[in-house]
Amino acid sequence: MNQQTATAAQIAELVKGELKGDPEVVVSRVSSLKDADAQSVSFVGNKKYVNQLDETKAGIVLVNRDLADASTEKHTVIVCENVDYAFTQVIALFGEKAPAWPVGIHPRAVVDPTAKIGANVSIAANAVIDAGAEIADGACIGAGCYVGHDAKIGEGTILYPNVTVMYRCRVGKKCIIHPGVVIGADGFGFVPGPNGLVKVPQTGIVQIDDDVEIGANTTIDRARFDKTWIKSNVKIDNQVMVAHNVVVGESAILVAQCGIAGSSEIGRGAILAAKVGINGHISIGDGCKIAGCSAVQHSMEPGSIAVGIPAESQRQFIARLALPQKLEKLAARVKALEEKN
Amino acid sequence: MNQQTATAAQIAELVKGELKGDPEVVVSRVSSLKDADAQSVSFVGNKKYVNQLDETKAGIVLVNRDLADASTEKHTVIVCENVDYAFTQVIALFGEKAPAWPVGIHPRAVVDPTAKIGANVSIAANAVIDAGAEIADGACIGAGCYVGHDAKIGEGTILYPNVTVMYRCRVGKKCIIHPGVVIGADGFGFVPGPNGLVKVPQTGIVQIDDDVEIGANTTIDRARFDKTWIKSNVKIDNQVMVAHNVVVGESAILVAQCGIAGSSEIGRGAILAAKVGINGHISIGDGCKIAGCSAVQHSMEPGSIAVGIPAESQRQFIARLALPQKLEKLAARVKALEEKN
Amino acid sequence: MNQQTATAAQIAELVKGELKGDPEVVVSRVSSLKDADAQSVSFVGNKKYVNQLDETKAGIVLVNRDLADASTEKHTVIVCENVDYAFTQVIALFGEKAPAWPVGIHPRAVVDPTAKIGANVSIAANAVIDAGAEIADGACIGAGCYVGHDAKIGEGTILYPNVTVMYRCRVGKKCIIHPGVVIGADGFGFVPGPNGLVKVPQTGIVQIDDDVEIGANTTIDRARFDKTWIKSNVKIDNQVMVAHNVVVGESAILVAQCGIAGSSEIGRGAILAAKVGINGHISIGDGCKIAGCSAVQHSMEPGSIAVGIPAESQRQFIARLALPQKLEKLAARVKALEEKN
Repeated sequence: MNQQTATAAQIAELVKGELKGDPEVVVSRVSSLKDADAQSVSFVGNKKYVNQLDETKAGIVLVNRDLADASTEKHTVIVCENVDYAFTQVIALFGEKAPAWPVGIHPRAVVDPTAKIGANVSIAANAVIDAGAEIADGACIGAGCYVGHDAKIGEGTILYPNVTVMYRCRVGKKCIIHPGVVIGADGFGFVPGPNGLVKVPQTGIVQIDDDVEIGANTTIDRARFDKTWIKSNVKIDNQVMVAHNVVVGESAILVAQCGIAGSSEIGRGAILAAKVGINGHISIGDGCKIAGCSAVQHSMEPGSIAVGIPAESQRQFIARLALPQKLEKLAARVKALEEKN
Repeated sequence: MNQQTATAAQIAELVKGELKGDPEVVVSRVSSLKDADAQSVSFVGNKKYVNQLDETKAGIVLVNRDLADASTEKHTVIVCENVDYAFTQVIALFGEKAPAWPVGIHPRAVVDPTAKIGANVSIAANAVIDAGAEIADGACIGAGCYVGHDAKIGEGTILYPNVTVMYRCRVGKKCIIHPGVVIGADGFGFVPGPNGLVKVPQTGIVQIDDDVEIGANTTIDRARFDKTWIKSNVKIDNQVMVAHNVVVGESAILVAQCGIAGSSEIGRGAILAAKVGINGHISIGDGCKIAGCSAVQHSMEPGSIAVGIPAESQRQFIARLALPQKLEKLAARVKALEEKN
Repeated sequence: MNQQTATAAQIAELVKGELKGDPEVVVSRVSSLKDADAQSVSFVGNKKYVNQLDETKAGIVLVNRDLADASTEKHTVIVCENVDYAFTQVIALFGEKAPAWPVGIHPRAVVDPTAKIGANVSIAANAVIDAGAEIADGACIGAGCYVGHDAKIGEGTILYPNVTVMYRCRVGKKCIIHPGVVIGADGFGFVPGPNGLVKVPQTGIVQIDDDVEIGANTTIDRARFDKTWIKSNVKIDNQVMVAHNVVVGESAILVAQCGIAGSSEIGRGAILAAKVGINGHISIGDGCKIAGCSAVQHSMEPGSIAVGIPAESQRQFIARLALPQKLEKLAARVKALEEKN
């Protein structure tokens, strides 16, 4: 822990919240409502946890504006406009920091003499940087990473341990790539040839723009030609599969275990919940939202919402869920008719 | 192979089974019924394989008590109370052993001078043990593994090659962690801030208790704060995704490609079949069973069973499956009414 | 890029296509219709892209025979019998090549003295080849790979970086194994014993035959006994899970994020689309096709098609999709009857 302490007044100022209660209460850690004690600052942003407010021992509780009435006088309360963002600031204040990356190339890293290494770079033991690769200023390459021929890693980007970036792929600035990610493996393409399946050469690259985060063991395949493209600010969770020639628009969110088939486009700000599957060669419009475990077969208009396997509108999905009840009611009406006849 | 041989009498004694047939039959290997020859001991524990009993060439067949009548006089039979457990003992007798881990630190491993290494530890080539990490007595760290700052690996635990354990995470005693597993990557959390998405710091850890097994390429994310917690005896298959702040109860089983979203709790002894998805912030009671490919949206009472997307009870699921037939029957009744009217 | 140029006449000859337009047009790269300029050769093999033909700036367009009428006189056209295969040949002509593997053992690779290394082998930095392993002529082992005790890698096979092949497993000739793949982790097996769950020893191996391709972060578990078997020419995409004792027949195709449970058999030439789940102990016949995101519970006859969760025939699936409309129509008929009565 950071061993830091803060008063309710200081926290209220940090998060620009409205303080109700004792401004002098001192806390030294963040906790969930359930695990909190008098030294804890906690929060509630979701109605389903409101009933824990009565019982929590937290010294300070951050509460979202719309739940402000639910708070009690048992603890000091700070009412926030956006409690999730506010509590994120509090976590940053108290939470234990990740270890710093030591600047320099570890003697047990293997860096090809033709690679270009920027200033203030950290390259850990057993990382391998291949011929012609470029590691920009301030980038950090974890233990056991492989950066392929002529690949480029942007300024301030972090590759956690055991990441693989294949030849010629490009990762932008200030990206965070978690362990086990594979960027630039061959796209999956075979065509029937005269003597069985023929591998389609995958001659393109993966381009990842700035401020992208990619979760552990996610795979992003290189393009058949041209590029598979993850635009800036995209956030990708663990075990996501992005196939060749896919384009993911700015600030889109791909939750864990999603899969996007070849050549599809995901619009700016779209949100794919966990385990979503997207068919190949379709277009998901800007701002679309897709419920978890859905399978999208057809292109979606911007701003639309889809759910189900195969995915349909929420209205259709809810109607489908209600089928057993509807059928039962209809059967009762038929029975009544039969009795009359 | 172990080159061992055993007689039917010896095997019957080992598994505490009831011998029917020749006690002097000698076998030297384990096989499926289909692949067996006279030197094989095989087994049948599942009704669907009973029809192979007539044709198998196995010298000895272990049979579960409830299938004992299905066996013939063609081969020597050993009737067992729990044939799965019995055959497991037989496999251990004949099956080829995994290679032993050489005690000591390979000269090509990279161990930080501040790491604490116990007695009889095996650390393979190209493993990296970072500052402050602790490797307890008898633990084995495979080639290419990374154990981060202040992480702890318990007594007798095995990390197979290319496993990543991030800073401060703790793995208990006698755990088995298969290749490619990532423990302690950042949880996936972003909140809308004044200038776009803001990363929520993930300042907690992953704690894995004793006797846990984790399959290849599974990922278990570190907590936003406090810990993601895998309790003792939990068995996790390959490519499972456990998100931040999840708690998995003792002896729960998570089959391949499951995903559990953030802050959910899985009860003691619960079984999630393959490809199950669990929503965030819900609670799955002790002993629950969830069918493969199901998506659970809401909390489940202890001991309950769920199936489907979205998951419902078995009764509801079966009723839903039967909808086309029910609708057809109802349509016939409507037609009869129409003809009358 | 290869910096190569070719005329329409040369390309038509290469792909054995029928040239319509100017044989002297020169192109120097491959592009999609949308991104093409006058120096590009592009193609259309799918009706949904035909409407881009009018607007593309491509110098040359390859067109499938059945879409030949859709082409215009704006650009030179080459009509092909199998445009996918034809364009694959064109990509190979223009597309940038993967970097060559340097022959020899990198001084920072770790090769056990008892390993057998063939001629013209490439072993990259930080690869670890364990005792008794065999690397056949012309095989390439990427950075950070681990090849376990007595494992065998066949002639001309490529292991991209950070691949793990566990003890005694065998990979055939001319295979391509992408980064992060794990071959031969323990199968997932536990049986209830007298004192809780007992691990079933996984004493078998994985055998991969010739010309198999395996996508990034896929996992193929070793058998309980005998072998998990991937037969020749099988093509496996990323993040696929193949459990213990599964057999996958020749030239089968397993698309991304599929999972096959233990002891099932997949027939020759079967195609499992993305995210398919296959139950354990079942048999999928030769040439079966399974739609994406389907969950197959029961064995399938050769040549059959399945879709849905749980999987059923296409006819049944389409009927099920139409249930809401059918129910609505039936309700209207019931209403009419009620009004009459």
